[in-house]
Formats: sequence, C-alpha cells, structure tokens
Amino acid sequence: MKTQALKGMRDLLPNEQTLRDYIQGKILETYRASGFERISTPMLEDMENLDKSDGGDNLNLIFKVLKRGDKLTAALSSGDPKELSDMGLRYDLTLPLSRFYAANKDKLPHPFKVIQTDRVFRAERPQKGRLREFVQCDIDILGDESPNAEVELIDVTTRALLGIGFDGFTVNINDRRILRGMLESMGFAADTLDSVCITFDKMDKIGADGVKAELLEKQLPESAVNALADFIAAGEVTLDAVAARCADPAIADDLKYVLAAANAMAAGRYQVAYCPSLVRGQGYYTGMVFEITCPQFSGAVAGGGRYDNMVGKFLGTQVPAVGFSIGFERVCGILLEQGYQIPGAKQKLALLYGKDADFTAVLSRAAALRDAYNVTVLPQGKKLGKQLGQLEAAGFAGAAFMDKDEVKVFAAQ
Amino acid sequence: MKTQALKGMRDLLPNEQTLRDYIQGKILETYRASGFERISTPMLEDMENLDKSDGGDNLNLIFKVLKRGDKLTAALSSGDPKELSDMGLRYDLTLPLSRFYAANKDKLPHPFKVIQTDRVFRAERPQKGRLREFVQCDIDILGDESPNAEVELIDVTTRALLGIGFDGFTVNINDRRILRGMLESMGFAADTLDSVCITFDKMDKIGADGVKAELLEKQLPESAVNALADFIAAGEVTLDAVAARCADPAIADDLKYVLAAANAMAAGRYQVAYCPSLVRGQGYYTGMVFEITCPQFSGAVAGGGRYDNMVGKFLGTQVPAVGFSIGFERVCGILLEQGYQIPGAKQKLALLYGKDADFTAVLSRAAALRDAYNVTVLPQGKKLGKQLGQLEAAGFAGAAFMDKDEVKVFAAQ
Repeated sequence: MKTQALKGMRDLLPNEQTLRDYIQGKILETYRASGFERISTPMLEDMENLDKSDGGDNLNLIFKVLKRGDKLTAALSSGDPKELSDMGLRYDLTLPLSRFYAANKDKLPHPFKVIQTDRVFRAERPQKGRLREFVQCDIDILGDESPNAEVELIDVTTRALLGIGFDGFTVNINDRRILRGMLESMGFAADTLDSVCITFDKMDKIGADGVKAELLEKQLPESAVNALADFIAAGEVTLDAVAARCADPAIADDLKYVLAAANAMAAGRYQVAYCPSLVRGQGYYTGMVFEITCPQFSGAVAGGGRYDNMVGKFLGTQVPAVGFSIGFERVCGILLEQGYQIPGAKQKLALLYGKDADFTAVLSRAAALRDAYNVTVLPQGKKLGKQLGQLEAAGFAGAAFMDKDEVKVFAAQ
Repeated sequence: MKTQALKGMRDLLPNEQTLRDYIQGKILETYRASGFERISTPMLEDMENLDKSDGGDNLNLIFKVLKRGDKLTAALSSGDPKELSDMGLRYDLTLPLSRFYAANKDKLPHPFKVIQTDRVFRAERPQKGRLREFVQCDIDILGDESPNAEVELIDVTTRALLGIGFDGFTVNINDRRILRGMLESMGFAADTLDSVCITFDKMDKIGADGVKAELLEKQLPESAVNALADFIAAGEVTLDAVAARCADPAIADDLKYVLAAANAMAAGRYQVAYCPSLVRGQGYYTGMVFEITCPQFSGAVAGGGRYDNMVGKFLGTQVPAVGFSIGFERVCGILLEQGYQIPGAKQKLALLYGKDADFTAVLSRAAALRDAYNVTVLPQGKKLGKQLGQLEAAGFAGAAFMDKDEVKVFAAQ
C-alpha cells in the first residue's frame, strides 16, 4: 500500500499543524472582534453550480465525484463522460458563500459580515508552491454597495496579518473598470484586455519600449499599442492620468476614497498603493480589486475584490458583495521559514513512570501538573539519560518522575 | 442554480458554527494539555488504500473521484467502471492516520499520541441523523501495547466531554476476543458472529427467550442457540462468567485492569461498565472496544478500540494502536438542543454610523471599543428604534453611536 500523501497534497506533522492552528485562531480572533461571524459549507458542491460559476481557469481544475449505483450505470451507458459526475470539490469559498447566502438570506443579518476558513481543491499540475488541496481564510461583506465595505475589509485583513506578526507588506488597490475603460478608449478590443494587462503589468521592469515590443509581438493594433506606450512614457502612471481616460468619474472617486481611507487606517504600519495594472484572475470580479504583497516574496499573500453579480445568479436579484482572502498556506509557509514561535504557549513536560507504577496514580499526578504544563505521560526508558536527551531535543521543557516530587527543568530552558 | 446544500450535507449558520468552534477548541485544549499533538492529512486518499482498508460496510460508502485527462480517456475505453477513479474521500480518520504513521514514523515521538479532528465522508442513504459529511474528533496512541493506552484514552476523552459540560454518560468496555471466544466455544461459526452479536446485544430488552427465538429464526445451530440462551437465563452476564468460556485468561485480566482503572479515574463523575455484547462495527478492531452512551440519547456519542494490524499493512511490521473518537456532530447536536451557551464569550456591540460619518473615525472608534466587546460597524437605519430592536433580537448586548460617547446597553442584558 502507498504510504505517501497523494501528489499535490500534504501530511502535516505536529509542529506545523500546531503553528497553523495558532495562526488560524489568531486570525479568527481578529475577524470575530470586528463583528464578522464564521459559517461553514460542505466541501462538495453540485456539479452544475460549479460549471456555471465564472471561475475562469479554475473550472478546468475541478475534482469531480463519480455518480453511484444506478445513476452511474445509466451514465456509463449514455456514453457521455460529462454525465459521470454529479458533484465536485469546491475550488474556492466564494461560490459556496454565494449559494449559502441565497439559501439562508432570511436568517442572516444585513449587511452580512462573514468568515470562511477551510480547504479548497484544484487539480493543478503538481509543482513547487502549487498545492491541489489548500486552506483559504476569507472575509466577505454581502449587502453593502458602499466603498466603506472595501475599506473595512482592508482594515480587518491587515489587522489580522499584523496580529500574527506579519508585517512589511503593501496593499495594492485598483478598479478593473478604470483600467479596462482606459485600454478600450485606446482602441484595444474587449476580448484582448486580459492579454494586454499581463504585458502592462510589466511596465516597471521593461519600460514603455518593452511594453510596446511585447504587445506588437502579440499582434495587437498598432495605434492602440502606440497610445499605451506614449501614455507610459509620459511619466508616472497616476490614478488621475488613468481616470482621465475612463468614462465614469465616480469609479475613480470611489477608488481615491478607498486609497485615502486605507492609508489613514494604515497609520504607517503598512503601505497602501494604487496599482494601475492589477486585475486578479477570477472572472467574477466586477469592480475594485486588491492584493497584499511583500517585497521579499513573489506573488500575493492575500487578494480579493468586489463581485456584485455572483449572488444574483442564485437569488435572481443582485446583492452587492466584496471579499478578501488570506492565502493561508503562503502566510504559514513564510512564518515557518522565519522560525516563528508561538508566543506564550504552555510548555511541554514529560511525566515518566516505571513498569510497576500504579497507572491511575500516574494520571492523577499528570492532572495536578497540568495547571502549569502540557503533560505527556510516558513509560520510563531503560537508558534514562538518553531518553531525557531525546525529550529535550523534541522540545520538552523538562521531566517529572513518579518517585520524586520536584520537576527536572532542562538546562536550555 | 440550486441554492440548497447537497443532500446529506449541511450549511452551518453563524450561531451553530461559533458553538462548534468553541466546543472543538475546548476539546483540543484538553487533548493538548494531555500531551497529544494534532496532525492533519488530506481529505482524499488513494483508491487502492481505501479499498484494502478493512473498513467493513464503509467501503461501500466511498465517494470516488473521477480520473482526469488522458487517464480518464483510457479508463473509459477500458470499459471497466473500477478504472474510472484513482482517489476517494476518506470515510474515517484511522486509515489516513495509519498511512501517515508509516510515511513519517522516523519524525514522530514514540509512543505517538496524536489528535485528528476533521471532516470525513460516507455516501449513506440520506436520513435523519445520518450525514454524508461529518466531523470526527479522534485521539490515538500508536506504539504502546500496554492496556495503559486504553486507560489513558478513556481518561482524556471523558475529561474532554466533561470539559464541554457534557455529563451523565457511561463508558462501556468490552474485548471482542472474549465475546467471540465464548460464542465460538458454544458452537457458533466464525462468520455468523456479527449476526449473533446483534441479537445478543438485545438481551436486556428481550430476555433469554427473545434471544433464543431471534437466533433460531436466523437459522443458527440449535445447540449453540440453547447454550447461549441457558447462559443468559442463568443470571447476570458477568465478565467472570464470559471469561470462563474464553481460552486466553490474559485477555480477561487486561479487560478487568482497564475497567478498574477507568472506574478509579472516573471518581463518580461518570459510569464505567462492562458491556458483554459490545463489538463496534469496524472490521479493523482487534481487541478491546469501548463506546460512550447517554441514557437520554440512543446510539453512542464516542467510540473506539484497539487496531493492532492496521499500521502493519502500510509499514510491513506491526505497530500496536488504539484510538477513541468523539462523534462531534452528535455531541454538538445534543448541546445545541440543550440551549448551550458559550461561557465567558465576549459580548457583541453594534457601532452605528450615519451617512456623512468619517468612516476612518468610525473604524478608529470601533478599535477603541474592541477591548471590551466584539464590535460590528453598521450603517444607522432610518428607523433607529426598529434597528435597535433587531440588533437586540440578534444577540447584540448594546449599541454605540458616533455622536455620543456612552454605550447604550440593551435592557435584557
């Protein structure tokens, strides 16, 4: 039988799991102190819901569950592979939340400030840093169309990160509509905008000439490419400059408002920046998008945005919605690499007992020691010195013995 | 699109999820204080491992995941439905733990005292009280063949239940080998023992005559049926009476030891009983089995036993193992029904702001109030009285306003 976890999925050893539980607990504490409430939804969703969910590339990465019994037999004889599956593992927490909200709206407060933190699944090609099962940590506000919802999510998420000792980060903010409005006004066709954005995002590295060369190579219209290159070459790409080329000035006003408020809340503890090229992958975002980056790590540690159309798919009527998701695997990975220690954790003590010990007396002694320590009862080994050395190496703070009253505290403590 | 959760699976609303998080946190606290450490394994396991896992009826209840890409195409053209799936959702936490231990043994302490608490999946026919996705809360000791491991698991599990305010329960203990030894000595064939046990388990309700009638109806050998009926009719079914008919007296001695030690640890806080008919369903149990019952509820709230052969399937060498699992759904359901309140939870406060409020000032005020309350910022409604009534009904302890310094505490608090 195979002993390794399936590829792209991970067994978590005690040290890592303990750290993860602590970090998740601290994040939840911040979320809850801010009036957000946790819900939970099943790992599995109806296959039809998943298929219609605007999840972009993620729709190709769904683990599908085989039908059972007579339904499987019928599906097999139909000859259509699409018929084989009736449910699938969720690829994110936004689709299940939208379904949940539609099903339970009447029992939920308005606006609904919600926490979700749990596993999601994507059948990615396994590679370093890409897992097929991973944890997301999301907060969302449903039913609030004001940009204050964006400000609040940024405030709560950044406080959650600061609360676990994660700092030195930047919150990058943009509004998809401004960027797309500008690019369309320059003459790029709507269906080429994703591709244009990928190149535009490299402007700091490759400059106006580099952007121009890459876009021409992509065979995009020369007049549009020239307009964009000239715009970049004219100097810093400011929000005002982009907004001047976008039809709806209210969109830029809201973005400015969020930037200013987020900056005020940051009070110098982190950076807030307008990022003209930010789009985020998911197809379901409709307005503002944001992500958190750290200079020392590539990729984002958190990301989110407004998705005003998703709940409407289930409910029939539109419900404004905005969410912010912490990349829990990435954050834990970074903290582990930095040698993170859980502050104030109870120390571990081993209570060793001999072969002839009265085991109920051992358990009673352990109970008495438990006020001060996490106590592990263990049979005493034949070579005590060696055993104590192993316990110390395994992170125990000391050992107690059934025939002595004192606790032996290891030197390193 | 469908808004309800899939059948047999549940959406958890904020109140229930908050309670579950609290209960799980308290259980984990007890486990950790006793030197157990949490690990985590993927929700998905290799299909071959699942198929060979001695899971009894659960093997018929596995949600299988469809292969992807070329492998799916090949499987479809093979015409064999068994080829369609390469992995499945786990049906319990014992198989994944055994695989985990085999893969990571060298990095783990000896004996290994481990916590697992997470979701498992069974494609049951949906009915009241039977979920297709549910949470188990397990502790296991791997690498300890002494019956002290059983005593410790019973001590820790019962303290976890007492710690969440769950009491009035009985720990029922048996050893499969004693029961089976007696039944075989009476003339029942090995492959009929499960069926005999089901009837034997009803002796308190239907008496010796009832047991006899049911077993004869099952067409079991008359001499064996008479021997069992006479045995029941002879008076209380004591451990000594059963043990006298079992070949290996050491098995009964260990069981007596565990019963006495568990009784001593209980110190009257719960009952400990020998249950001669207890077997537990899983095929992988090899010796002692136990379960926790409450008179007011049918079925067990926790169950476990020794499974000395499971890890050996992965590792090649035998590793003694024993586990105890709390039925988390059932325990939470019972506590919810009893109107359980989380002790010492921070109260919820609403901070209401008007349309023209400076939102960064609102967030700063919320931060200041957060020492004493969980603070939810909310736009002030047009009808303040109505809004305050709704907040009170939703469990808020009071409200604060941007234009007043005081906090309005609701009368009921």
